[in-house]
Amino acid sequence: MSTTTVIKSDVANPALASEGKKKIEWAARNMPVLAQIKDRFAKEKPFTGFRIAACMHVTTETANLMLALKAGGADIALCASNPLSTQDDTAAALVYEYGISVFARNAVDRDGYYKHLNSALDIKPQLVFDDGCDLVNVLHTSRTELIEGVMAGCEETTTGVIRLSQMAKDGALKFPMIAVNDTDTKHMFDNRYGTGQSTFDAIFRATNTLIAGKIVVVAGFGYCGKGVAERAKGLGAEVIVTEIDPTKALDALMQGFRVMPMTKAAAIGDLFITVTGNRDVLRDEHFRQMKDGAILANSGHFDIEIDVAWLEKNAKVKNSKMRHQTDDM
Amino acid sequence: MSTTTVIKSDVANPALASEGKKKIEWAARNMPVLAQIKDRFAKEKPFTGFRIAACMHVTTETANLMLALKAGGADIALCASNPLSTQDDTAAALVYEYGISVFARNAVDRDGYYKHLNSALDIKPQLVFDDGCDLVNVLHTSRTELIEGVMAGCEETTTGVIRLSQMAKDGALKFPMIAVNDTDTKHMFDNRYGTGQSTFDAIFRATNTLIAGKIVVVAGFGYCGKGVAERAKGLGAEVIVTEIDPTKALDALMQGFRVMPMTKAAAIGDLFITVTGNRDVLRDEHFRQMKDGAILANSGHFDIEIDVAWLEKNAKVKNSKMRHQTDDM
Amino acid sequence: MSTTTVIKSDVANPALASEGKKKIEWAARNMPVLAQIKDRFAKEKPFTGFRIAACMHVTTETANLMLALKAGGADIALCASNPLSTQDDTAAALVYEYGISVFARNAVDRDGYYKHLNSALDIKPQLVFDDGCDLVNVLHTSRTELIEGVMAGCEETTTGVIRLSQMAKDGALKFPMIAVNDTDTKHMFDNRYGTGQSTFDAIFRATNTLIAGKIVVVAGFGYCGKGVAERAKGLGAEVIVTEIDPTKALDALMQGFRVMPMTKAAAIGDLFITVTGNRDVLRDEHFRQMKDGAILANSGHFDIEIDVAWLEKNAKVKNSKMRHQTDDM
Amino acid sequence: MSTTTVIKSDVANPALASEGKKKIEWAARNMPVLAQIKDRFAKEKPFTGFRIAACMHVTTETANLMLALKAGGADIALCASNPLSTQDDTAAALVYEYGISVFARNAVDRDGYYKHLNSALDIKPQLVFDDGCDLVNVLHTSRTELIEGVMAGCEETTTGVIRLSQMAKDGALKFPMIAVNDTDTKHMFDNRYGTGQSTFDAIFRATNTLIAGKIVVVAGFGYCGKGVAERAKGLGAEVIVTEIDPTKALDALMQGFRVMPMTKAAAIGDLFITVTGNRDVLRDEHFRQMKDGAILANSGHFDIEIDVAWLEKNAKVKNSKMRHQTDDM
Repeated sequence: MSTTTVIKSDVANPALASEGKKKIEWAARNMPVLAQIKDRFAKEKPFTGFRIAACMHVTTETANLMLALKAGGADIALCASNPLSTQDDTAAALVYEYGISVFARNAVDRDGYYKHLNSALDIKPQLVFDDGCDLVNVLHTSRTELIEGVMAGCEETTTGVIRLSQMAKDGALKFPMIAVNDTDTKHMFDNRYGTGQSTFDAIFRATNTLIAGKIVVVAGFGYCGKGVAERAKGLGAEVIVTEIDPTKALDALMQGFRVMPMTKAAAIGDLFITVTGNRDVLRDEHFRQMKDGAILANSGHFDIEIDVAWLEKNAKVKNSKMRHQTDDM
Repeated sequence: MSTTTVIKSDVANPALASEGKKKIEWAARNMPVLAQIKDRFAKEKPFTGFRIAACMHVTTETANLMLALKAGGADIALCASNPLSTQDDTAAALVYEYGISVFARNAVDRDGYYKHLNSALDIKPQLVFDDGCDLVNVLHTSRTELIEGVMAGCEETTTGVIRLSQMAKDGALKFPMIAVNDTDTKHMFDNRYGTGQSTFDAIFRATNTLIAGKIVVVAGFGYCGKGVAERAKGLGAEVIVTEIDPTKALDALMQGFRVMPMTKAAAIGDLFITVTGNRDVLRDEHFRQMKDGAILANSGHFDIEIDVAWLEKNAKVKNSKMRHQTDDM
Repeated sequence: MSTTTVIKSDVANPALASEGKKKIEWAARNMPVLAQIKDRFAKEKPFTGFRIAACMHVTTETANLMLALKAGGADIALCASNPLSTQDDTAAALVYEYGISVFARNAVDRDGYYKHLNSALDIKPQLVFDDGCDLVNVLHTSRTELIEGVMAGCEETTTGVIRLSQMAKDGALKFPMIAVNDTDTKHMFDNRYGTGQSTFDAIFRATNTLIAGKIVVVAGFGYCGKGVAERAKGLGAEVIVTEIDPTKALDALMQGFRVMPMTKAAAIGDLFITVTGNRDVLRDEHFRQMKDGAILANSGHFDIEIDVAWLEKNAKVKNSKMRHQTDDM
Repeated sequence: MSTTTVIKSDVANPALASEGKKKIEWAARNMPVLAQIKDRFAKEKPFTGFRIAACMHVTTETANLMLALKAGGADIALCASNPLSTQDDTAAALVYEYGISVFARNAVDRDGYYKHLNSALDIKPQLVFDDGCDLVNVLHTSRTELIEGVMAGCEETTTGVIRLSQMAKDGALKFPMIAVNDTDTKHMFDNRYGTGQSTFDAIFRATNTLIAGKIVVVAGFGYCGKGVAERAKGLGAEVIVTEIDPTKALDALMQGFRVMPMTKAAAIGDLFITVTGNRDVLRDEHFRQMKDGAILANSGHFDIEIDVAWLEKNAKVKNSKMRHQTDDM
C-alpha cells in the first residue's frame, strides 16, 4: 500500500515500516477469529463515519485489530497504553504501510505519553478503546470538551475496570464503557494463558535464567497470577503464592502451591513476580530480607508494584542494562 | 477346573476360591504380554519336569504368572514374600481352582511366615523365584541340603538385589540369580508407575484423606520414590523429598520438589511416605518434631523404615484399627 | 454416650456402631473448621427448638455435621440422599452412640429409599437439608401438608440447584432454599478437589487398574469434571475431555487436554468417566464403538449418565460382581 | 583488564566487548560451582604450560569456563562448535576484555567455520575440548601432524560421543577422550532441563506463538526430548512423542504423552521439534501431510533433522526472515 502523506502520526522510525508489516502479517496467522470478523466488517462497513481513539499496547496483535476496524470503515487514532510495550516497527507499519494514525514511541517519558494520548483524542472520538483507563481519565479531566461527542467505549484490563467501576459508582463516568475483561474468553484465556507465557518469555529474554529448580514467588493469584504460577510450575520451579483473598489463597494451596505472606516469602525466593494490581507489593521491608541476586519482575498493568525508587536510592551499586530491560542493583 | 485333593497347601479360607478366581481373571485382562507368553509356553512346554519354588506377593498378578508357568509344564510351590499383601481369595483360588500348591495366609506371624517358606522349599526346587531374598537366604542357612539341586533363580526387587550382590561379592551365593529388577521394563514401570499409584491407593483406603493441599514428605528418590513423589504432586500436594544421594537430590530439586533433610521435614509434613530400603528412616528424633495427626506410611520392601516399636512404647494413647491397617498413636 | 431407646431409626446393623464411631472420630480430625463451629454452637445453642430433616450422603463427614447441629440444640432426622454411598457403620453409630435418628441402609431399593425420606420428614421439619432435591421434591408432592411448617432449607449439589432454580422460576418452590453449591468454598474445593480424588479412589478399589498410560475420557468440564481431568492427568493418563459448552471446552483445550465429541472419543478411550449431570451421556451409539474391556464409571449425582439398561439388554455375557461394585458386560 | 594487541582472533565486532563483558559477569552469577573451581585453579595453577584448543558454543557460560581455565594457567584458543549460537559480544569480550584467543563469528558459512577450527588448532594443543566431534575430526583428517602433541580431550554432547565411540571401536581414535555427556550431572540436567527450557526460549523469540492449546510433536525421547516434552506439557500443550526405541516410547506413554509414528503425527501437529540426533526426521512424506502454518524447529546438535533443502525447493512462496531466524515457506 502506498503511504499517504496526510496521516498524522508520531512514531520513532518510519524506516521500520516494512519489517513491522511482516510481523503484523505473521501475527495475523494466529488470529483466525479476528480474520472472520474483519471479513464481515469489510462487507458490512459498520463503522463508516465513526472516529475511534484507541489507547492500547502497540503490538502486532493490536495492529490487526486496527486493520479490522479500518476494514469496517472506521477512522482511527491509536496511542500507546504503555510506552514500554510499544513496538516501533509495528507503529511505523501502521502509519506508512496501512495509513492509520499512530502516536507511540517505545519508552517515551511521562510527558510524551500524555502528549500522545491527547494527540489521539484530537480525532474527536465517538468511540474510545482503553487499556488501563488513562485515556478515559484524560477525557474526564483535561479534555472534557470532547465528552459530549463520545457515545461509548470499552476497557481491556482488570485494573482499568476497577477504576471505571469506582467512577461509575461515584456517578463520575460520563458515557457507557464495556468491560472487555469481564468476558470469559478474555480473562480466562488472555490473562491466564497469555500473561502466563509472556511473563516467562520476558524473563527468559531479560535474564537468561533457568527456571527449573528455582523458587519462584508469585504475588497475586487472580487470573494472571494463576497463569504465572502454573507456568512457573510447568517450567520446573518450586512455586510460592502470596494472596490476601482467603478463598484464592486456599485455591492456590489446594493446587499444591506453597502459600504464605510476602514478609515470609521474601527471604526464600529466587525470582519474584508481582501481578496484583496494587502498589508497593515489594518494598523496603521485603528487599532487606532478600537473597543477594534475587530477581524481581512486575507483570501487573502499572509499573508500581515494586518500589523501584527505594532500590534506586538504597542500592550500593547499580549496573544498568546488564541485559536488555534488566538492571542490577 | 476340578480341584485335586492331593495339592499340598496352607491357605486361610478355601471358600474364597470362587471369588479369587474372578479376580484372577479380571487381572488377566490387563496382562496381554503375559497372555502371549502363556500361549507360547502352552505350546512349547519349556518347564516340563521342572520344580519351581516361588516366594512372591500372593496377588492376582502373581497368580497369572503362576498359571503361565504351569501352562509351560512347571510343578510349582508358591509362598508369600510378605504376609500383609497376601490375598486370601487369590491363594484359595490357586489351590482349589487351579491346582497349584500355595502356602500363604494374610497377616501370619514370623513363625508362620518361615514355616511357609520351608513348605515351599519342600518341593526341592530346581528353580527359585524370590522377592526380597528371604527364600534364597533360607536356602543358604537352614536348608543347605537343597542347594545342590538348585540350578538358578531370579530376584524381583531392589532390596533383594542389594542383598544378593553382597552375597555374590562375599562368594557366598551358591547358584546364579537373575536380577529382574535390573530390567528397564521392571524398574522404569513397576517401581515408578506401579508403586506410585498403589501407594496412594493404599493410603486412600487406610486413611480416607484428601491429598490436595497436604504437605507430603517422600523419603527416597529412587525409582519408587520418584513415582510416589510424582503421584503426590499429581494429586495436588506440596511435595518435599529427602534423599541422601546428591545427584538424585538435585534431580528432585530440578523437578520442582522441595528437598531437605528429614530432620527439617519432620516438623512440616502432614503425610510421610518412606521408600528408601533403609532402616529407621523415621525415628525418635523425627517423631518428637511432628505435628499431631501426622500420617506415616511405608512403601519400601521391608517393614523397617519407620521405628514402630518406639511409637508403640511412647504413644500416650493407641487407638488400634481406627480404619483398616491404620493405627492411631 | 449411652444409647436412648426411643430414637427412631432404620439402619442395617446396630452392631457396627462402635466401628462407625471410630471412623467418625477419625474424620473429625480433618474437619477443624467444623470443630470451631461446633464449639460455638455448643455455647450459643442457635438451634434449640428446631427440628431438621436432612437428606445427605450418610458418611462420616455428614455425621460430624449432624453432631455439630445437635450440639447447637437441633432435633435431627437424617436419611440418605444416595443409598449406594450409605456407610452402615456410620449410620449405626449415629443412632446408637450419638442418639440421632437415622433412616438409611446401604443399597436399599427405590421403595426403601422413599420410605426413608418419608420417615425423616415425619419429624415435621422447620429446616430441611437436601442433596439432589429429592427431599424437597417429596415435600412438594406427597407431603404437602408439611410445607407450611418449613421455614427454609439448603441444597448441596449442582444438580439439586438446577432443579430448584427451575421450581423457583415456575413459582412452584414454597419456601426459600440456600444454594450451598454456589459458595466458592463448596464448588471450588468439594467439587474440584473432592470429587477429583474420590472418583479415582472408587475406580482404584473397584477395578484395581493402573491409570498411567491409559486414555481417560472425562465427559463434562464443570467443577467436578475439571477435578477429575486434573487428577487423571496427575496419575499419568492421556486425558480427553468432552464438553458441550464452548468456553469450557476451550478452557480444557488451553490446559492441554484433548477435546472432542463423545462420538469420536468413544472408540479411543480405555476409561470413561461421566460427570455432566445429564442423562445417557454414554449410550448405544457410543457403546458400539468402544474397545473390548473399556471401563465405564459415573461420578455425576444421579445414576443416569450411562445407559446401563441398554448394556444389561445387549451384553453377550454379564459377569456380575467381578470386583466390588463392578460388573463385566 | 587491558587488552593485549598480540592476541590472535577473528571476531565480528570488537566494539561489542564491553557489552559482552557485562553479560559474562551476569552469567557468572548462576555458576557458583564453577566459581569455586576457578578459585581453586587460581591457587593451584594446574594448567600452567598447557595449551588448550576448545571448540564449543561461544556463549557467556563457555566464556566463564574459559576464564576458569585461564585462571588455572592455561593458554587457550576458542572456536565455535556452531556458528548460529555464537554471541558476537561474548566473543569480542573474551578477546578484548580478557585476552583470550577466539575465532568465531555468528553465522559464518562452512568455509569460515572450518577456517576457525584450524585457527584454534594452530595453538598446537595438548588438550582439546570438543562439542560435536568436529575439532577431533579435523585433527584426525587434515591436521594429523598435531595428533602426536595431543594428550587427551573431552567431548560434550551425545552426538559427539556417538561419533567418538565409533572411532574408538574402529581403532581410529588416536588419543583418549572423556565423554562429559556420560556424567549424570551433564545429561540429567543440561540435556533435560537446559535444552527443555532453551528450546522454548528460542521458539518464543522466533515465533511469538502461544504454546497453550497447541499440539506439539516432539521427535525423540532421549534426555533432551524428555526435557522438551515436559516443558511443552508444562506450557499447556497437548504433546505427541515419536520414538523408535520401544522402552523409551513406553516410558513416554506411561507419562501420559501420546505416542505414535511421525507418519501419523505429521498431519496432526501444530509445532514440531526434532531432537533425535538423526538425519531427515522430518522429510517429504511428512511435509506433504502437514497443516498449513505448521512450525518446524530443530533442537538436535546438527542442523540435519529437518530436510530444509526439500522445503527450499518445493515451497510455493518463501518469506525469509518473517521474524529473527524464522523463514516462512
